[in-house]
Amino acid sequence: MPERITLYTAKICPYAHRAEIALAVAGVPYTRYEIDLRNKPEWYLPKVNPVGKVPAIAYGGPDVPADQPSPESVKLNESLVLVEFIADLFPESGILPADPVLRAKARLFIDAVSTKFGPAQAAVLHNGADPEPLVQALEALQALLPEQGFAIGEFSAADIAIAPFLARAELNLENDLGGYPEGKGEGQRILSLIRSPRLARWQEYSKAVQSHPAVASTFDRDHVLQSFKKRFAELRAKKFTA
Amino acid sequence: MPERITLYTAKICPYAHRAEIALAVAGVPYTRYEIDLRNKPEWYLPKVNPVGKVPAIAYGGPDVPADQPSPESVKLNESLVLVEFIADLFPESGILPADPVLRAKARLFIDAVSTKFGPAQAAVLHNGADPEPLVQALEALQALLPEQGFAIGEFSAADIAIAPFLARAELNLENDLGGYPEGKGEGQRILSLIRSPRLARWQEYSKAVQSHPAVASTFDRDHVLQSFKKRFAELRAKKFTA
Ligand SMILES: N[C@@H](CCC(=O)N[C@@H](CS)C(=O)NCC(=O)O)C(=O)O
Ligand SMILES: N[C@@H](CCC(=O)N[C@@H](CS)C(=O)NCC(=O)O)C(=O)O
Repeated sequence: MPERITLYTAKICPYAHRAEIALAVAGVPYTRYEIDLRNKPEWYLPKVNPVGKVPAIAYGGPDVPADQPSPESVKLNESLVLVEFIADLFPESGILPADPVLRAKARLFIDAVSTKFGPAQAAVLHNGADPEPLVQALEALQALLPEQGFAIGEFSAADIAIAPFLARAELNLENDLGGYPEGKGEGQRILSLIRSPRLARWQEYSKAVQSHPAVASTFDRDHVLQSFKKRFAELRAKKFTA
Repeated sequence: MPERITLYTAKICPYAHRAEIALAVAGVPYTRYEIDLRNKPEWYLPKVNPVGKVPAIAYGGPDVPADQPSPESVKLNESLVLVEFIADLFPESGILPADPVLRAKARLFIDAVSTKFGPAQAAVLHNGADPEPLVQALEALQALLPEQGFAIGEFSAADIAIAPFLARAELNLENDLGGYPEGKGEGQRILSLIRSPRLARWQEYSKAVQSHPAVASTFDRDHVLQSFKKRFAELRAKKFTA
């Protein structure tokens, strides 16, 4: 009998989304508990994740309600660690294939997502920085892709690592949401850079990732859009009125 | 028949040292090729690692001299990816144990090494910054340790991730080498902070890691010390004379 899995998550959070996609790929039952990041339940830090972040997993232990976590379950966090954990629990899911070389290639792609794409996209989307470094990061990732298919051929942990960010970036840019001034076409301008011919293979890849059933079925577009609208309204109010 | 492994490495480099420790734990034959980082062979970037860094592995392919890498071997880089790769190739090495929970705990420790310890130790040792954040990072790592033994009990990838940095930090501080002014007792002062009672369990752990055969046998103390002496003499000449 497999151990119980409870995922503490939040729809808006791209890191948490990684864990949800991995669990969807594995196709295993689990308890999903939405954490309100602006008003975390008082038991969350002491009983689940002392750092206070999502995602976190409670694994094993007795059958308890998600909001009354047992000290007997193992608590794990960090989205990429959780994706590897789910891959280890369910090797037949193919989240990481058996071949050591393909596993290494997936992890190299993930490393580039963390070290190149992550900082560049945060700078552009949250801080309104020059988009050129983001375009260069996407070109570097594009260079790692095979001619067709996902990052290592079949859908894997590599695609799971970036999927939530692709989905949120497009949603934000299409709705002119970001750490740049509103109503000046900046969202569209960045989108058109990302959709330029030099990133043609990347665009094709990005679409395939976003329409993968495990990604699409775990992305609540409307909820995320409403949350981002609120968040960026606040951020812009602070940033652009002085 | 196992595939051929060639490791491109440099004795001074802590990242490269990780791959050497993992291969020593696995106890498998491989070809070791020392790259002179100040004078890289002209074939290294085009044929092994376009980023120009060590460590890198050439895996498989025909039996060629290390300085004539074949396009038929797979080229992999990034030290942590290589440690996982070696763990995947040789599961019986125990570099990562079979239990998914223990594997996750090893990766959580590694994540803390990369995100907390890494930046703090570079700031102190290379830039001469205030050592208090480093002490705090070590306390955070110490909190992850079990009461006895290595990071997850048995020696694993978690210990491999930090071992090269522990060995180099102590060597540098004992020899008053760092991005701080020389001859003012700063090395000893930082050492005494790291060796203070609040880090007692950490010190015990650090000693056990450094004397593990796979760590000790792959650390050429004299060579590393001579290289660091040169490096810090140059750095200090730039930094402290204006
Ligand atoms: N490195 C973490 C990052 C997780 C993270 O930053 N989560 C955010 C939401 S997207 C969070 O929980 N923030 C709550 C807080 O910091 O209070 C991971 O990969 O899991
Ligand atoms: N993130 C890389 C870092 C490797 C690295 O920075 N290696 C250094 C030596 S310690 C290097 O090869 N530098 C040569 C250069 O940058 O030209 C890893 O973990 O493997």
